Amino acid sequence: MERLRFAPDASFIPRGDLLDGVTVAPLTARPGSGSPVQAAIFRLAANGRLRRHPATLPQILAVLEGSGRVSGSDGEFHPIGPGEAVFWLAGEEHETETDTGLTALILEADGLQPWRTGS
Amino acid sequence: MERLRFAPDASFIPRGDLLDGVTVAPLTARPGSGSPVQAAIFRLAANGRLRRHPATLPQILAVLEGSGRVSGSDGEFHPIGPGEAVFWLAGEEHETETDTGLTALILEADGLQPWRTGS
Repeated sequence: MERLRFAPDASFIPRGDLLDGVTVAPLTARPGSGSPVQAAIFRLAANGRLRRHPATLPQILAVLEGSGRVSGSDGEFHPIGPGEAVFWLAGEEHETETDTGLTALILEADGLQPWRTGS
Repeated sequence: MERLRFAPDASFIPRGDLLDGVTVAPLTARPGSGSPVQAAIFRLAANGRLRRHPATLPQILAVLEGSGRVSGSDGEFHPIGPGEAVFWLAGEEHETETDTGLTALILEADGLQPWRTGS
């Protein structure tokens, strides 16, 4: 058993201009390491944003705390809060923003398939 | 963009005698569906337990809320709380229990590798 941490003080500020007010605490080894899935806790400060960009891989964003808005390929924003998640296809343009702050799990994996009731 | 839910009312009580006071809300399609990773939110009620058993696949358990105790192959329990996680190897005997309740993300995938600082 190996211990890991993903608390705010174990987070870092990712490089790049797609993210405003976002810190990331990875749970899994980085892309290219051979891990078949990337999982990380993303914390968006008030007025934080993951700017519109295409998903590299199929992706699930699951809101753990706080609330915000998400959009997919049609660009229309929908409110999202704790206990709610979205699935984006590989290549799908998407965006996440919050007024008051939001903590989310993001999962990315080649071949990722979301849970569907009855599936 | 497809919407998903993992709130308590989207959870179910899994079959089997390994789980006491546990509900599960899956995020990904079930094993055998072709999804390369299984991710689900496990909610343990007060005095809930995931009894000792070997991990089917490499596994990360990340505590989102509440607190409890986890053990690995040596059977020794260690306290765990929000922002903390553990990684168990495939085949590793492990156990999770809580006095006051605990919500955790569990990730399982063949080849799963945890984040390590500096990795």
